[in-house]
Amino acid sequence: MPTISNKGKAMPESPIRKLVPYAENAYKQGKTVYYLNIGQPDIKTPEIALDAVKVHSLDILAYTRSEGSEDYRKKIASYYKKNDINVTHDDIIVTTGGSEALLFAFGAIMDTDDEVIIPEPFYANYNGFSVASGVKVVPVISTIENNFALPPIEEFEKLITPKTKAILICNPGNPTGYLYSEEEINKLANIVKKHNLFLIADEVYREFVYDGNNHVSVMSKPGLDEHAIMIDSVSKRYSMCGARIGCLVSRNKEVIQTVLKFAQARLSPPTLAQIASEAALETPQSYFDNVITEYVDRRNTLIAELQKIDGIKVATPKGAFYCIAELPIKNADAFAQWLLEKFDVNGETVMVAPAAGFYSTPGIGLNQIRIAYVLKKESLVKAVNILKEALKVYKD
Amino acid sequence: MPTISNKGKAMPESPIRKLVPYAENAYKQGKTVYYLNIGQPDIKTPEIALDAVKVHSLDILAYTRSEGSEDYRKKIASYYKKNDINVTHDDIIVTTGGSEALLFAFGAIMDTDDEVIIPEPFYANYNGFSVASGVKVVPVISTIENNFALPPIEEFEKLITPKTKAILICNPGNPTGYLYSEEEINKLANIVKKHNLFLIADEVYREFVYDGNNHVSVMSKPGLDEHAIMIDSVSKRYSMCGARIGCLVSRNKEVIQTVLKFAQARLSPPTLAQIASEAALETPQSYFDNVITEYVDRRNTLIAELQKIDGIKVATPKGAFYCIAELPIKNADAFAQWLLEKFDVNGETVMVAPAAGFYSTPGIGLNQIRIAYVLKKESLVKAVNILKEALKVYKD
Repeated sequence: MPTISNKGKAMPESPIRKLVPYAENAYKQGKTVYYLNIGQPDIKTPEIALDAVKVHSLDILAYTRSEGSEDYRKKIASYYKKNDINVTHDDIIVTTGGSEALLFAFGAIMDTDDEVIIPEPFYANYNGFSVASGVKVVPVISTIENNFALPPIEEFEKLITPKTKAILICNPGNPTGYLYSEEEINKLANIVKKHNLFLIADEVYREFVYDGNNHVSVMSKPGLDEHAIMIDSVSKRYSMCGARIGCLVSRNKEVIQTVLKFAQARLSPPTLAQIASEAALETPQSYFDNVITEYVDRRNTLIAELQKIDGIKVATPKGAFYCIAELPIKNADAFAQWLLEKFDVNGETVMVAPAAGFYSTPGIGLNQIRIAYVLKKESLVKAVNILKEALKVYKD
Repeated sequence: MPTISNKGKAMPESPIRKLVPYAENAYKQGKTVYYLNIGQPDIKTPEIALDAVKVHSLDILAYTRSEGSEDYRKKIASYYKKNDINVTHDDIIVTTGGSEALLFAFGAIMDTDDEVIIPEPFYANYNGFSVASGVKVVPVISTIENNFALPPIEEFEKLITPKTKAILICNPGNPTGYLYSEEEINKLANIVKKHNLFLIADEVYREFVYDGNNHVSVMSKPGLDEHAIMIDSVSKRYSMCGARIGCLVSRNKEVIQTVLKFAQARLSPPTLAQIASEAALETPQSYFDNVITEYVDRRNTLIAELQKIDGIKVATPKGAFYCIAELPIKNADAFAQWLLEKFDVNGETVMVAPAAGFYSTPGIGLNQIRIAYVLKKESLVKAVNILKEALKVYKD
């Protein structure tokens, strides 16, 4: 019998995958489950995007250009200009989701056994992309005590080796909700310039920034043209995760030319989704204003409710729609399963993502969970109450 | 300045990419260009598929399951049953095009520097997927003299090393149009069983089989359950290349579980395209009957016209919609460029794909081109006439 690869064996499972059968069982038993475990918002997709595919006039659903249509890339460039990011359509390659943009970035700049430094906790699939690309993740630890701020520069410099090719950040952060300050971005800029590294920034949550803060893109920093690679996606911005349209942006021509070769090999990003995504760029500002108001409200509710629970520690997110909470338990994995399997309040329970999967250092984050505040305020209140009642009786 | 990866440097350009600016120039000069260079058919997509997205009732364009929706996979399994391939939905993972299915297969079964044996000439992007996966392509040469039949078993066995993990075939073949006989598939089955290898079969052209021949799937062979991995796609079957929906099929549970982890990392295949692809499965048989009749007609026309040219050698394709022609010239690359740049017949010229990009052995196929018969018969006649006139005057 032929055997699978070591790479395949090393591919991580999604942090919530093994909980799914328990969630399905809870559902079958008639329980109501509040899903706080995944970044699939309940926010409606802009109608302009959904309607665009309803009135399509295609008679052949053909390939587009591998880098995305020129029209669409020009419109994306205009959108960036409004966000103080000056790029042209030649700096943009349309990808199948932000996921593919990251895979292309890894492939273009890293060879087998090369290293990428990532502040942890980080988006769990960065592990998957790294394994798939044969690349080693070197974590630099940010802590809940410090509200997940950027670790000191010395911590990065300690980790840089001849194999280090890049630093990867997610800003605002999934799973932390952390928003890097201008000063922190400057620090990172200095490190990558000094050590001749790439700085990859996953900025898919750019719009989700609260409390009057500004998002600082790595693309807005002078002197980073050869270093900065931005990862973007329509998934969260327009609540269209299922489109699978993202892009990779860089002013480094060699990076773009190399990424284009990866893009050519897979022929084309999805055509229908590009129609929807191009139309989504016309979404009125009022849509975002409403969405941001809604998320701020949800976040405030979630944090206020969580802080009522004894022994809980929570970092207040300044962006995105996640937060990490540290619970007065030992093993969040077992707790999350128990919530689905054994616990309910009046037939209702909650599904959370154990946070250990967002760390690559073993043994860290075992008592933490990630909560995605993608549900309405009333549901969040109920869900946190369930957590509170659960923690009163749970023993691990 | 940070440097790109060796992998990135090694990524092949698409065989026709460098011709594109010349084609654009020819177009700007007012020339009519017959595009025989790419497998983008002019056949209309079934209306049932295009209409399904027009009447979608989504208000949130959400993720689907990473492996594709259960409903869609069940319908795919039914489609396979009609084609004598007995699999269940659990043996199927929906992917973003056949391209992603191949990348997942490579990742699941091969580590860096592992080897895959592929009869050449082969679909050029197999090279790209191999470089991206850190895998080495070991070509086994099939020849135009032999109409691109499977090389003798001894040729395969000579190439097998401890690093060999798989044999990859495309059946019917792009770029050759070759259709493997039952006897040839049996031979391959014996090799992979004897040497404990995987047999990956790219069967995206399954429906495009002519002259009363039968397509023999690797999934229909007993004893291959642990070895066979089938790659499939809706792109050619329903002329919906831009959907970017394919799938990977295997009865090897470990392969499926491993591929699922790769699928989870990229979250979901495109949702709108799955709606179109699910509807496409209801396409009436009459659609295919018409399409096949059309392609046979085109093929017969193309081959008959080509054979009128002095010094040309052409293998008659039994499937797909490509053929390889050997021209009485030295360098098809230069010839293809010259056709676009310097030649026309009454303001019309033709774009072909130089075949060298479909070989991984350097120096082979330099005088060959791939012709995709994706245009109407009248256009094919005109295009071949242009080739004929061109060869009368071309000097290399």
